[in-house]
Amino acid sequence: MASSSTSSRAFTVAVDAMGGDYGPAEIVAGAVKAVREGDLEVLLVGDQETVLAQLATHQPGDLPITVVPSHGVIEETDHPLRAMRDKPEASMVVAARLVKEGRARAMVSMGSTGAIMAVATLSLGLLEGVERPALGGPLLGSLIPTVILDLGSNVDCRPSQLVGFGAIGAAFARSLQGIENPRVALLSVGTEDGKGNRQTREAFPLFQESGLNFVGNLEGGELFMDRADVVVCDGFVGNILMKFAEGLGMALAGKMSTLLGQSLPREAVPQVEQQLATMTNVVERGGGGPLLGVDGVAIIGHGRARAASVASSISMAQRAVDLGVVEAMRSELATLRKVAKE
Amino acid sequence: MASSSTSSRAFTVAVDAMGGDYGPAEIVAGAVKAVREGDLEVLLVGDQETVLAQLATHQPGDLPITVVPSHGVIEETDHPLRAMRDKPEASMVVAARLVKEGRARAMVSMGSTGAIMAVATLSLGLLEGVERPALGGPLLGSLIPTVILDLGSNVDCRPSQLVGFGAIGAAFARSLQGIENPRVALLSVGTEDGKGNRQTREAFPLFQESGLNFVGNLEGGELFMDRADVVVCDGFVGNILMKFAEGLGMALAGKMSTLLGQSLPREAVPQVEQQLATMTNVVERGGGGPLLGVDGVAIIGHGRARAASVASSISMAQRAVDLGVVEAMRSELATLRKVAKE
Repeated sequence: MASSSTSSRAFTVAVDAMGGDYGPAEIVAGAVKAVREGDLEVLLVGDQETVLAQLATHQPGDLPITVVPSHGVIEETDHPLRAMRDKPEASMVVAARLVKEGRARAMVSMGSTGAIMAVATLSLGLLEGVERPALGGPLLGSLIPTVILDLGSNVDCRPSQLVGFGAIGAAFARSLQGIENPRVALLSVGTEDGKGNRQTREAFPLFQESGLNFVGNLEGGELFMDRADVVVCDGFVGNILMKFAEGLGMALAGKMSTLLGQSLPREAVPQVEQQLATMTNVVERGGGGPLLGVDGVAIIGHGRARAASVASSISMAQRAVDLGVVEAMRSELATLRKVAKE
Repeated sequence: MASSSTSSRAFTVAVDAMGGDYGPAEIVAGAVKAVREGDLEVLLVGDQETVLAQLATHQPGDLPITVVPSHGVIEETDHPLRAMRDKPEASMVVAARLVKEGRARAMVSMGSTGAIMAVATLSLGLLEGVERPALGGPLLGSLIPTVILDLGSNVDCRPSQLVGFGAIGAAFARSLQGIENPRVALLSVGTEDGKGNRQTREAFPLFQESGLNFVGNLEGGELFMDRADVVVCDGFVGNILMKFAEGLGMALAGKMSTLLGQSLPREAVPQVEQQLATMTNVVERGGGGPLLGVDGVAIIGHGRARAASVASSISMAQRAVDLGVVEAMRSELATLRKVAKE
């Protein structure tokens, strides 16, 4: 390790400094922000020279930030598994190894979602009962606290995978949100049992037998009606919804000034626009989402994350560790298996 | 026909008075509104006694509205094809027959989407080159004029069906919106060629060879960025998006007063809420959508339509006939077949 500091802070996180559209500059800035604001230590993984240079611009003094050198970066266009083999010292791989070896309690990366999934799955392993990890969480925190998953890491899911997402989501809602008996629903095109596409129609009876608190199908508009705590969908649908919500919020904000400019006080317009954008902005507010189902805490930040969002991802990692999310999921999955066997 | 009137009006539409959540009362009211405001004649198809009683409450005088008796209603829960056989005189079936026999130029129904598709397909036939009709149009008129289809009538689409939606959508954009060379895109989870689920990955090369002005994949957020005039997706995704947009708009509107109440002038809050709800309300603004790909004009109204929305669906039917939408689609599809053969 190049720059070193001794730290008595209780929580250490490995941050992939190289991933994302604005790495390493914004990621280093986010790490600095996180350690200044919170009680934690950061291992910044990346090209040593570049990361140290970035770090120097922040007058880090004796902040508990350590640079851990890596070589190479897994790009968005790389094939995840091939990249892991060809770039064994890439920043994301090294970050996962630090967690595996117990030198960090969690990892954070803004890199390719597919690559983080592959790296975390192979380095940290999956919880028993999970076929593939999922990406999820409250889609629009302030509007709907509902946990939605999968949000994009898995497309073409088998019906049984959807049930797995339900279990993971229920554990998330129970442990992170304190909901005792989370209601789990299936996103579909009609609330009647027989409605949906082939995937959801086949998943429906599996959910009924799963032992989850399954409340049936939910339509797109019902996401806002507090009918479920966890909503399950294929990653293809989830990803389109997530990005659509962001785009819609920005579009509404952009139209407000035209539509209301004449009747609203001029000074109020920017505020309305700002509120709309904030409420629908998954990037800067949420700061990232945990990769659910792996045996360890891995936070996938948004590719376009800037410093504030990076810092928010780091604090989400700390919260996930403090709340014992992984242990909660392990026990949720064990209960489900027990119910399924009975 | 029970109540009769002679009319010299140029356009006659058959309206299924029985379908929808608020039929026949709101549908009759909508028909009255439409003939009072426009130059058209309505054939109101439904249970004669009930419909006449409703009509009487509007003091119809010599309005060009004729009640055409029918027997039975196809319910939302009925199996479409079975219902057609068991209820051959149901309101929706009779309405389609009036179009087939040339007594009306178009039909409008607020009934079950699946049933209208089946009835219209069997009674009116499909245009050459269309495998199944689609439901589509501008999703959020004032925000994005982009034509999106399918919006819910077809789930589990084969890749070739998606290309068919592209052709139908292009004809819609050209004939109804006057766009000369509509850009057609595929809704997916990444803009790169290889991204998507199995369905969109297989459809991609078919679009490239189709002769359509195919501009590639589009992500959910890019719907708002004017990158395409026609966006194609499976009806499962389209329906969820459409209902999600509506729900999001209402949720944002509901939050505005809480978030802005203190800083905005009190009297401006309802206006901001109203604008948000209007911009995202697919029901009352759009008024319905044409069933695309059938050899005739059939407008599917929203199941929850009230009078204003019914009247708007009726005027959409008239516009579709006046603009020759069906002929435009027929020639668009013929051109595509020619290109595909070359």
